[in-house]
Parts: sequence; C-alpha cells; structure tokens
Amino acid sequence: MNVGFIGLGRMGVGMAANLLKAGHDVTVYNRTPGKDEEIVQMGARPAAEVAEACDGEIVVTMLADDHAVESVVYGDQRVLASLAKGAIHVSSSTISVALAERLTADHAAAGQRFVAAPVFGRPEAAADGKLFVVAAGESEAVTTATPFFDAVGQKTFVVSETPKAANLVKLSGNFLIASVIESLGEAIALVSKGGVDRHQYLDLLTSTLFGAPVYKTYGGLIVDRKFEPAGFAAPLGQKDIRLVLAAAEELRVPLPIASLLRDRFLSLLAHGGDNLDWSALGSLAARDAGEAAN
Amino acid sequence: MNVGFIGLGRMGVGMAANLLKAGHDVTVYNRTPGKDEEIVQMGARPAAEVAEACDGEIVVTMLADDHAVESVVYGDQRVLASLAKGAIHVSSSTISVALAERLTADHAAAGQRFVAAPVFGRPEAAADGKLFVVAAGESEAVTTATPFFDAVGQKTFVVSETPKAANLVKLSGNFLIASVIESLGEAIALVSKGGVDRHQYLDLLTSTLFGAPVYKTYGGLIVDRKFEPAGFAAPLGQKDIRLVLAAAEELRVPLPIASLLRDRFLSLLAHGGDNLDWSALGSLAARDAGEAAN
Amino acid sequence: MNVGFIGLGRMGVGMAANLLKAGHDVTVYNRTPGKDEEIVQMGARPAAEVAEACDGEIVVTMLADDHAVESVVYGDQRVLASLAKGAIHVSSSTISVALAERLTADHAAAGQRFVAAPVFGRPEAAADGKLFVVAAGESEAVTTATPFFDAVGQKTFVVSETPKAANLVKLSGNFLIASVIESLGEAIALVSKGGVDRHQYLDLLTSTLFGAPVYKTYGGLIVDRKFEPAGFAAPLGQKDIRLVLAAAEELRVPLPIASLLRDRFLSLLAHGGDNLDWSALGSLAARDAGEAAN
Amino acid sequence: MNVGFIGLGRMGVGMAANLLKAGHDVTVYNRTPGKDEEIVQMGARPAAEVAEACDGEIVVTMLADDHAVESVVYGDQRVLASLAKGAIHVSSSTISVALAERLTADHAAAGQRFVAAPVFGRPEAAADGKLFVVAAGESEAVTTATPFFDAVGQKTFVVSETPKAANLVKLSGNFLIASVIESLGEAIALVSKGGVDRHQYLDLLTSTLFGAPVYKTYGGLIVDRKFEPAGFAAPLGQKDIRLVLAAAEELRVPLPIASLLRDRFLSLLAHGGDNLDWSALGSLAARDAGEAAN
Repeated sequence: MNVGFIGLGRMGVGMAANLLKAGHDVTVYNRTPGKDEEIVQMGARPAAEVAEACDGEIVVTMLADDHAVESVVYGDQRVLASLAKGAIHVSSSTISVALAERLTADHAAAGQRFVAAPVFGRPEAAADGKLFVVAAGESEAVTTATPFFDAVGQKTFVVSETPKAANLVKLSGNFLIASVIESLGEAIALVSKGGVDRHQYLDLLTSTLFGAPVYKTYGGLIVDRKFEPAGFAAPLGQKDIRLVLAAAEELRVPLPIASLLRDRFLSLLAHGGDNLDWSALGSLAARDAGEAAN
Repeated sequence: MNVGFIGLGRMGVGMAANLLKAGHDVTVYNRTPGKDEEIVQMGARPAAEVAEACDGEIVVTMLADDHAVESVVYGDQRVLASLAKGAIHVSSSTISVALAERLTADHAAAGQRFVAAPVFGRPEAAADGKLFVVAAGESEAVTTATPFFDAVGQKTFVVSETPKAANLVKLSGNFLIASVIESLGEAIALVSKGGVDRHQYLDLLTSTLFGAPVYKTYGGLIVDRKFEPAGFAAPLGQKDIRLVLAAAEELRVPLPIASLLRDRFLSLLAHGGDNLDWSALGSLAARDAGEAAN
Repeated sequence: MNVGFIGLGRMGVGMAANLLKAGHDVTVYNRTPGKDEEIVQMGARPAAEVAEACDGEIVVTMLADDHAVESVVYGDQRVLASLAKGAIHVSSSTISVALAERLTADHAAAGQRFVAAPVFGRPEAAADGKLFVVAAGESEAVTTATPFFDAVGQKTFVVSETPKAANLVKLSGNFLIASVIESLGEAIALVSKGGVDRHQYLDLLTSTLFGAPVYKTYGGLIVDRKFEPAGFAAPLGQKDIRLVLAAAEELRVPLPIASLLRDRFLSLLAHGGDNLDWSALGSLAARDAGEAAN
Repeated sequence: MNVGFIGLGRMGVGMAANLLKAGHDVTVYNRTPGKDEEIVQMGARPAAEVAEACDGEIVVTMLADDHAVESVVYGDQRVLASLAKGAIHVSSSTISVALAERLTADHAAAGQRFVAAPVFGRPEAAADGKLFVVAAGESEAVTTATPFFDAVGQKTFVVSETPKAANLVKLSGNFLIASVIESLGEAIALVSKGGVDRHQYLDLLTSTLFGAPVYKTYGGLIVDRKFEPAGFAAPLGQKDIRLVLAAAEELRVPLPIASLLRDRFLSLLAHGGDNLDWSALGSLAARDAGEAAN
C-alpha cells in the first residue's frame, strides 16, 4: 500500500518504521527538517511538502494536537487540497471530538474519506508495533485502512461508523489513566504518611487486585518519583483532559474526576511541571499533605 | 492450632471452613444463632459464648464493623476478658485505624497480643482460600498467626510492626476499588451518551490497558447494571470510605477522590441504595448526565 | 455624544433607554428586526445595518456571547470595517478573556480603540440605570466612554489599562454569584432535610451574616423553587463558568469550586434545565439528597 | 436570674460580662484557674467546681468542642449530676448534632431540660452583646432562657423544638462562611494572577453585589494575608466542617463544597496552619496557582 505519513515525533517514527517493515511504500513528512533521516535510511521516501505525502490511497497524520493537525490539513498544498477523491485521511493523533467532526465533514465535501484511528500505547509500544488502535469511520474506509492498523498495532477495535466516536473513546482512555495516577497518588500519600513503605505498598497492590500494566507503569513512576524524562509530558495530559471535558460538555455529561484532574494539571503546570511526565500528577496529593517530594 | 473464630458472615464462613480444611481445631461463635450449622457439620466446635471461642492461642474476629468488633471485645466474658496472657487476637475485619490503635493498646495492657490482618477478596475468594492477607503486628505474633493466614489466603503481605498500618492499607485498597468504580462510571456514561456501545467499550478497556480483575468485575456490573444481589453492599462501601477519610484526617492527608466518593455514596443511599452492591456507585455519573438507568 | 448601540436584549434595551434619557444621540441595531420599536419610539434612530450604528465616537455592543460579538465585529459592513479611526468600541457583553484580547489587537491594528466595560446587574437594574460597570482600557478611551458608563450605571470601576482584565473581573463575579447559589443550595438541602423550615432559615441567614442582595435574591429563588421565568438562563450561567474556567486555564489557576459548578450546570442542562434560571443550580444538592423538588 | 456560666474563653468572657451587665447573678467556672479574675472583678461569683455553677435555673456552657462539653457534663459533680430537676442546660458551644441529641436525651432522663443555643459572631460581637443566637428546644425552656439570649445577643432565632436543629443551623452557617472564604480565595487568586489589584478587586466586590459583612471581614483578611493572630483558629474551622459533614452523613445529604473545604483545611493544617485564622483557607487557591504568599 502506498501510504503517506505526516508527523515523525516519538510515536510517529515508530509507527512509520513498522509500516515500512510490513512492506508498504511510505512517504514521510515532518515540519521540522532532519527528523526524517532515520526513517528515510530505513527506506521511506522524504516529502518536502505535505502535498507530496498525499498522493497515495492513505495519508496518516500523527501529530501533537488539534492545531498541528489543522495546520497540515487546511490551506494550499495541504492534505485537504491534495488528497485524491476517494483517498483516506487516517488521523491517529489524539485530537478533539469537535475537530474529528469537522474533518469528517470537510473530507466528505471534498469527496475524500476520513477515518479516526487514535492509538493507545507509549513510544516503546509504537516502536514494537504493539499499539492498540481504536478505529471509527465508514465501513469500507476502515477496511481499506486495516493494513495500516495491522502494521502498527497488536489489536484494532472498530467502535463506530462515526469517526469522532473513536476520538471520544481515546480521550476517555486517557482520562481513565489519569484517574489511576491521581487515585494512586492519593493512596500512596496516605499510607506513606501513615508509615507504610510505598514501594512495598505498590508491590502489594499490583500483585493482588491491581495487576494491570497501567498500575505498574504509573505506580512505579510515582513511588520512584521519577518524572523526568517525560514519556508523555504533562502539557499533553492536560490537553487531553481539556478535550475530554470539552467533549463531555458538548454531550452534557458531568465528570467530577475529570474536573479534579483538570485542576491538578493546572497546579502541576503552575509549579513548573511543563517538562515532567504526566504521572507527576500523582505527586500532588503528597504535596498537599505537606510531604516533601523527594 | 487451636483457633477461635468469631463472625460467620459471608466472608467468615468461608475462612473458617478453610481453617478446618487445613487441619486446625476451630471453635466458632456467631451472635445470630443458627449461622454456625454448616460449619459445625464440617467439624467446628460451636461456642455458646464469646468466651468459649477464646481459649486457644488465637482468636480471629471477622465482623462487619467497628461496633461489632467492640461488642465482642469489650465487656464481661468477651475477648479482652477471656483471652490468655500471650494469646493473640487477629482482627480480619475492616475496622477503623483508630479502633486498631485502641485494640493494640488494650490487648497489650492485658498481656495479650493484637495482630491486624484484614483481607482483600469477595466471598468467593474467601470460600476458595484465595484471599490476600495484609498483616501487621509485632513480629513474633505475626509468625504465630501465619498458619491462619496460609489457610485463608493465597498470599500474605506483612506491612508493619504497628497493627493499624494494615488497616490503613486495607482501607486504602477499598478506596482504590471505589475510585475504579467511579472513574469507570464516568467514562462509561460519557462514551455511552456519545453513541458507543458500553459492553464493547468495557471489552476494549479490559483487553488493553485495564486488564486487572477489578476492572472486569466492577466494569461488568456497571455495564450490565446488575447491582443486586449485593456482593458488597453500598452501606459497607460507604463505611469504608468514611474510615479512610477519618484515617486521612488524623494524618492530615487531603483525599479529593475519597471526598467525591463519600458524596456519591450518600447520594446513592439517599436514593434507596441500601441493598445495592457498592458498584451501583458507577451508575451515578449516568444519572447526573440525564441518562435513564434502564 | 453620538452613540451606536448594538444588541437590544433584556439588558441592552434598558441601557439604550438610559442613554437616551441622558440626552445622547443613540442609533440602535438589533439582528432580529422589530426589537427596536420601543426604543425607537423613545427617540433612538434605527440602523438597518451594523455599519449604520458605527458612525459615532462610540459603538457599544451588548450581546449574548462571543459568537454574537464576533458576528457583528468581523466581516464587511461590520464594526471593525465601519468604525472611524480613533473611534471606540465599548464591549459590555460578557465575553471571553480571549476574545477581549483579540478585539484589543484587531481594533488597534485598525487605528480604533477598544474598551471592555462589562456590567453587573439583572435586567431591572439595567432599566433603572443602576448597573455596576467594570471598565478597562487605555486611559483616554475610558475617559471618553465615561458618559456612557454614567448613563447606564450607578458606579464605575476602572480596573486596568488592559481591556481583558475587566472581562476577567466580570467573569469572576459571576463565578462568585454561582458559588453563592451552590453553597446556599447545599446548606438549604441540609437543614431542610434536618427538619428546619427553609424560608425561616433563609430569613435567619440574610438578617445576620449574609445580608448581601445576592443572598436575598438567589436564596429567595431557591427556597421558593421559582426557577421560571429565567432572569438569567442556565445556559448563560454555564457559558460564564466555561469562560471563567478557560481564563483560569490560560493563567494556570485551579478553581475547584468553578469545576464543581461546571459539572452542576451540565447536570442541570442534561435534565432539561435550558429554560430555567441559573439559580436552579441551587436545587441540585436537594436532588442529590433524594429530596423531591416539589 | 441565677445563671451558671461554664467556659471563659474569648467568647465566653464577653457573654458572661453581658449577663452581669444585664443584672443577672452569674456564677462562673473555667477549667484553667485564673481565667475568671476579670469577670469576678465585674461581680461574678467564682465556682471552684462545675457543680457550684449548677445551682441556678440555668447553666450555660460555652466551650471549645464536644470533648470539652462532655467533660463538664458527664461524671461526678458535673452538670448532669448537679442540675436540679426542671433546671436548664443551655449549650452555646458549637457542638455536634449527635452530641446535642445525646444531651437532649440524657437531661430529659434526669428530669432536666436542654436547650441548644449556639451563637454567630466573633469575640468582639460577644463583648458587645451583639451575637446572633440560634435557639432550639422545648418551648417553655426556650422562654425561660430568653433573658440570657437577650443579654448576649442582638437577635434570637428560635428554629425548632428539637435542640439539635439549632446546632445543625449553626454548623451550616459556619459552612457558608467557609464557602465564602474559599470562593473568594479562588476569585482573588484568579484576578490577581491576571494582573488586577486584589485590594481594588475586593473593594469592587464589597461595594456592589457582595456587601455582606462576611465578604468584607474575610475578604480583607485574605487580601491583606493577615492570618495571625487567629480570631477563629483553623483547627476550629476544620472541626466545624467535620461536624457539618458528620451531620450531613447522618441525614444522607452530599455536600460537595463542604468536602472540598475539608480537604482544604487538612492541607492548611498539614502545612503548619494550626495557629492561623481559618481565613488562611483563602490563601490555598493562590498557592495551588503557584503564586507566592508574600
């Protein structure tokens, strides 16, 4: 399959590499020049402009946020202006439900197709082709995009024929992860101030009822207070909570834990947390309890 | 080992049966007469009074709450007045940190020993001897009680030499479970109102990042809206959140999610939830979003 | 002074009338035709287009939200395209801090001036010329606009030379009012379920420590459960809380009560509260406590 | 009237003095000796024991908390054992609803009467006889106690024939005050970080919609960051929020703002706030926003 791939950040580079390994023809574009060297050496064709990455059946965007996606989609020589009729824009970025809705409409108006396919997994999972893909879109388009899903992920969930539903699911997943971070942060602050060793406590939790990877991964970062370097930076976490709250507002669904997470993120960022991993959220309960964070 | 066992509720009856199966001499007492029939048929000796269950090396209490524990411990012919010097009171009930502290002092003053050993697991796990035991107490006493832990549980975690630390850990665990219930309730309310099938959604969550049993068990109850019969009744959940908040207050640790859970439980109970499983907490987000609970 | 006035809603019509009474030449524009009849009979000149209301020294906009303001400001024949160099756009609408910032920049680029002058007060206060005006902008522009402030308000507070500061203050004020509604709603739900007469309770509060008009006005609506007709509709209250949260996010200020209010508003709207007064927020605590809203 | 007065703290000494000024015979008792000197010089009779203060028609208790009240009521030579049949115990302390219920029953069983009459007002108001009295109890007993109310307060509200209702109202009032402190703290943190002068902001608020004394008093302490010496110490505020939450739990009324206040108080105390005025709560929003508390 001839695939364009836009966005060679920590996630994108692994995904593009796995597309190559799966035998696809991949044309890559990244706004910042030079980021494509590694992937070009692996066999990708470099695109000097967005438009050059849009001449296949599919173009994938894997970018940081709504703004970045809008800037490659809208405008001269951009995705919307360049994609052939019937071709598919697969958006794997974690974007807003509102933007997904808008892209769906705009691609349809241009005779193109839009599939939302956000992914779960950290950069290591992207490198290993072990992402989980949450896909939504018109059935035929999803089928066409399936080789891409297979190349980057270990499993794909098709949740709806309406693309934005996949974004909602993705955002809700990040909300659930952040909820785990916050609740673990509170529990650890409590037992730790009560004299229990926090490493032993996490071990107890994860070897009993809380064996999911998410508890091990984030719990480990919290008890080790190892928030740098950031696997997923706090501002991105904050963005996702903002997006989940925006989607919830549109649907009129109160989400009290998400509201709490929002305030936690703002406090984290107000205290210089821009370069920390979002798991640093899990240190705020200890701070509020007057416990030093070292 | 000669073990007294007080409290033959849904949890206690399974634990006492496993003590018998492990070859111990077990004397059982339950306030409500008749509840001991099954266990006596299995070989336990029935005690007509609390005192009769206190003539061995260990007496275990497995009761509903602080009040029930106090009523078998304090007073004539009760545990404190009946236990031999050096004998051990093992408390497996989910009681307050404050009561654990008081029992530690009172048993010590009486020349007796106190071990806190609350357990994680629902009645089925108790019946299968698959509980997780969180033990704390003076080292020798914990060692002496170990055959009991081995009989009822699949794994024991010794977290401190101070008994109350085990109760704190147990309460924090129930807090984390309730946090999962609430956050799942919110996420399900959101995606469901957004058009995603909630059963498929739960399947997606539990086959990806949220594979822990707690997500499967409670998520299943929430998406099936199956809150009766109660495996663990809402008032017990509410009690545990009250106890975790009380312990946190003593330690001066703010717990915003626990505060939210407190309010959720009160609303659940105010709407007639006394006989529902505590997972019914996970239906309140949908209610607040105006979704019928059909 | 020659003043254009755009927006003849419940607030605007009173303000424009007071401008006329103060002797100013007023040209009025309203998107929906016919709304200007009353005010034209009082002496205002009707404008068929936005541009016609922009030929004086000042044009005031008093509209429902950001969208409405944007639609009269941007575009051919609109405020930005029509206002003379040096003329002033006074925005009395409750708009976002972000839009105020954008308007400041765009009017400056066009050689025009922008003053933010949101107001506190319900429609009756607007009719009586008893509003409180919160003004911010370049000093000379504020001075020029002062006759307008004097005509519509009983007092003007100049809070900054940066227009958006006035919008922030206005939004924070609405946040404080909503906080009063929520806290009163909780207190009334509590004492009422505890057997105290809620009317007597409110009387006690307002004749002791809580004598401010805001407690009397909103407390009265809550204890009377008189949420229709809406003096200030719930969707407008929700909008303002959204705007205050957006401003707080930009400034990285966590606002836990505002987050709670956000969720309350969503629940109110999810239960059909679109046409209720925003004080209906104060009925949700009773609902959560299982009390009928008879 | 022959009145016993127990508790000569900052509030009690002013109340007892006003009883003397009104011409009553007052016998005073305070646990810490020496505290009665000033009031004895004004004409009060000193009691060496609690019992000596219980020989009149009425004995008033004005103490710090439940524990202090219990310790003067229960036991040999204490209020319950000393009061004549038909005599009245008027409790003006801010105590729990549960203790009020227990005192009502115990005094009734002893043939005595119990009136709850907590007061609103800071020490200066107590000294000036300007308290607000919230009274509840059996009608005749309340009538008998009225000269006491008149001596210490500017107005009395009789809210119920069930004493504990007065305590509920008192606690709810302190909850409302703390809500004002928190919401003001949030609003001030917001506009202040947004560049608005916080003193001018408070002036704007209190001269418009928020003219109640409670906004002026607490707002002033917050903008001046003057939290010492404590007029009402943070631990007392925390106690009251605990009591309001306990009463709400009993009545099954969720109180989300009270839950937030609880967490705020714990954080304040965890950071060394024991000697600060409870208005220091209003500084936490700024702290969470990363603003120094200079």
